Amino acid sequence: MPKQPAKNGSAGETRKLTTRAQDYSQWYLDVIAAADMAEHSPVKGCMVIKPTGYAIWERMQRELDDMFKAKGVKNAYFPLFIPESYLKREARHVEGFAPECAVVTHGGGKELEEPLVIRPTSETIMYEVYSHWIHSYRDLPLLINQWANVVRWEMRTRLFLRTTEFLWQEGHTVHASEDEADSFAQEMLEVYRKFAEEYLAIPVLTGVKSDSEKFAGAVRTYCIEGLMQDGKALQAGTSHLLGQNFAKAFNVKFLNAEGIEEFGHQTSWGVSTRLIGALIMAHSDDAGLVLPPKIAPTQVVIIPIAGSAEEQTAVLAKVQEFVEVFNKAGIRTEVDKRWHLRPGPKFYEWEKKGVPVRIEIGPKDLANNCAMVARRDTSEKMKIAQADLASEVTKLLEKIQTNLFDRALKFRTEHTQMIADYGKFKKVMEADPGFVISPWCGNAKCEAKIKEETKATIRCLPFDLKSKAGECLACGEKTNIQAVFAKAY
Amino acid sequence: MPKQPAKNGSAGETRKLTTRAQDYSQWYLDVIAAADMAEHSPVKGCMVIKPTGYAIWERMQRELDDMFKAKGVKNAYFPLFIPESYLKREARHVEGFAPECAVVTHGGGKELEEPLVIRPTSETIMYEVYSHWIHSYRDLPLLINQWANVVRWEMRTRLFLRTTEFLWQEGHTVHASEDEADSFAQEMLEVYRKFAEEYLAIPVLTGVKSDSEKFAGAVRTYCIEGLMQDGKALQAGTSHLLGQNFAKAFNVKFLNAEGIEEFGHQTSWGVSTRLIGALIMAHSDDAGLVLPPKIAPTQVVIIPIAGSAEEQTAVLAKVQEFVEVFNKAGIRTEVDKRWHLRPGPKFYEWEKKGVPVRIEIGPKDLANNCAMVARRDTSEKMKIAQADLASEVTKLLEKIQTNLFDRALKFRTEHTQMIADYGKFKKVMEADPGFVISPWCGNAKCEAKIKEETKATIRCLPFDLKSKAGECLACGEKTNIQAVFAKAY
Repeated sequence: MPKQPAKNGSAGETRKLTTRAQDYSQWYLDVIAAADMAEHSPVKGCMVIKPTGYAIWERMQRELDDMFKAKGVKNAYFPLFIPESYLKREARHVEGFAPECAVVTHGGGKELEEPLVIRPTSETIMYEVYSHWIHSYRDLPLLINQWANVVRWEMRTRLFLRTTEFLWQEGHTVHASEDEADSFAQEMLEVYRKFAEEYLAIPVLTGVKSDSEKFAGAVRTYCIEGLMQDGKALQAGTSHLLGQNFAKAFNVKFLNAEGIEEFGHQTSWGVSTRLIGALIMAHSDDAGLVLPPKIAPTQVVIIPIAGSAEEQTAVLAKVQEFVEVFNKAGIRTEVDKRWHLRPGPKFYEWEKKGVPVRIEIGPKDLANNCAMVARRDTSEKMKIAQADLASEVTKLLEKIQTNLFDRALKFRTEHTQMIADYGKFKKVMEADPGFVISPWCGNAKCEAKIKEETKATIRCLPFDLKSKAGECLACGEKTNIQAVFAKAY
Repeated sequence: MPKQPAKNGSAGETRKLTTRAQDYSQWYLDVIAAADMAEHSPVKGCMVIKPTGYAIWERMQRELDDMFKAKGVKNAYFPLFIPESYLKREARHVEGFAPECAVVTHGGGKELEEPLVIRPTSETIMYEVYSHWIHSYRDLPLLINQWANVVRWEMRTRLFLRTTEFLWQEGHTVHASEDEADSFAQEMLEVYRKFAEEYLAIPVLTGVKSDSEKFAGAVRTYCIEGLMQDGKALQAGTSHLLGQNFAKAFNVKFLNAEGIEEFGHQTSWGVSTRLIGALIMAHSDDAGLVLPPKIAPTQVVIIPIAGSAEEQTAVLAKVQEFVEVFNKAGIRTEVDKRWHLRPGPKFYEWEKKGVPVRIEIGPKDLANNCAMVARRDTSEKMKIAQADLASEVTKLLEKIQTNLFDRALKFRTEHTQMIADYGKFKKVMEADPGFVISPWCGNAKCEAKIKEETKATIRCLPFDLKSKAGECLACGEKTNIQAVFAKAY
């Protein structure tokens, strides 16, 4: 078992978390433990996602799934197992994934004729099946998504960010033309951008990966990249134009309107439980998790305060009224009725769990027809008349959502620089990293050199960055390409 | 690849299905293929759940998940892998599952120190983790559920009913007393009964399994049992009282209110994609799938009929009005706009896909302010005024739901007999099987003898069956126990 960070968010625990300034990595683990989100399992590299963490994943799934379906995508389910030979059919694909595979060699007490790989991603098994489904252009576009677990053998794991098994969705589509496939890949990237920015309140750069960083087997990889509070970038989602690479390897063909056989044009795109890691690192503070209201499983926690049994009854009756009003208003509410705990430790616990709004109500508030409302993001407290509670809380949740995005955007703006000088680039990457926009000649060797010397990688070639004359950081050659560099998770 | 049954429900395909009378097993496969629900994958024993089939699973998940959450159950996620040594800690458990295990021996290019079993069920890994979570009676009850894939190596597979990998939910709870655990196990069985009867429209017997048929490691297994149209029973869900068997093996202990250490009392309960198999076999007919409206992903399909482009525009405009009204009424609606297909093949296709209500609307209907409505369950067609369409369709969907349940219940009643004579029992099991209620002495040897001689197993000892004096079918000994026997899937 790995070392245990701060005790999980259990009743009455008041130990402080490691601060970000003290030790960012430990702070991250402390936030997860204090919010009771996940832990390392007894199986090396695999995590247990605890109810508080899983509820966030469920909310992500629900929102994304609706967005996918609005694009005409349908869910399906393909096998966990992939015959080893399938993985080998696309040369770059196997090169990228073979070292990370978990292999089943025995089943039902016997050695298997052909070992089965546990899916690290499902292009190969899905496209083999697609090749039997698709006959004519009328069968296209084929737009399929799968919610599933995947396994990539990892040596160094980190809860949510990098684990041997993780949960994700993988979309796999086939189109009649490269243009249409490319548009669709970009449309799905736009879904991810919208979701990251509007739900997770994480501003992201959108762009194209360099060839060295693209998906094994893709023609082009689009990505969204967020900036974490330690100045490191995090790839939060990718969408790949696969071209006809896999179609040729798996014989995904169709008859076009002219009756001529063509290979399909494909895309794949995915996000994973890694998004929970991004969410934690983008917004949380030294007191624990901070959740954007739109993704928070519990948006409001109500803490009734009472001494005597009569007071408890009176306060709870009022609280129940609020719960009903809140439910009608679509506010996800929880009531903390644990009378054996004092209010202080309860406040502390919900703060660590990142619930956006806390409401306290006691006998005095009953008498004054008000309630005390506290924001998680700013710690601000305010007294609000009971009659206005639902409308004020609704507004407050919107305000918090906006504030978290604005705060993260401000942080990103402050940590994004244009640097043309390699000496300065090195210093920034060492002392106060962030996104650095620099000229690059387009050569993979220069990219590798920069990575080796500074640990910074090209995160993307952003869509909205105008080309600008400059000299490549590494070789000094003239170029119009600008790339966004950062150290990354 | 296994032999392909009837071609899937693609455009214009009008081949007839095998009938139930001709070959029930082939009919089942034909229904699945014609409705485009699932197919065998290139990986032996594993299926691909296609969009039409998966959408049914999604609806099942949504409804069940809400019911679980109403009981205070929370979702979490535990690793796919189980160390081989864990499985061995509970003796009967390993005996039950070891022969069915898929084993990972290599990861990341190296042989593993300890092989990892792919979860056939998660008692062992979950309870090892629970033992670290639970300290005091205040941590109880612990009510956790997981939606996951599991693997049990199967020699003979059958789409949905028995596959090597399948999807399911597994609930795992810990309680402070045996009484509470037993009540909870029964409560969850009641959730399953309600879901089966009210959503799937499948009447089920509820009761207790005999010792030979109970879950490997359980004290007692409760089950729901449905009767399929071929007179065979299908176990549709189980809920186990595990007692302290696993708690002792995995050290799941708590301090009670008196400060004394005790082992926890546990339950586990699950249903799987097998329910889709039950759904198919309970209601479908020789024309294909029949879905109960409450679980149908598409409840109503609207088929616009038009010749000229002007007619198409006019009809589609009206159809769009209906769609909006239906959406508001919460009716899940699809419009089949494929103008390149004639209405006949479309009707046939939606019939095979089991959509409960079909609406046809053409230029004549526009002129007469009406639409033609067809029921899938009875094939009845009726003309309905457009103004009444939403309200009439809502009523019709309820009627169909009720009719399917009533029809299945009538079938079950007609195929349930009380038989005291073993000779007659044998004949019935051979000629016209169904549920047979017979006296049984309680001895596993007699149960085994009956199974060997007739292929009938004890499906359950029903809750609502009064004890009645009789003589055991197999040994003739006097007994008050009555058991429900059937051949089963």
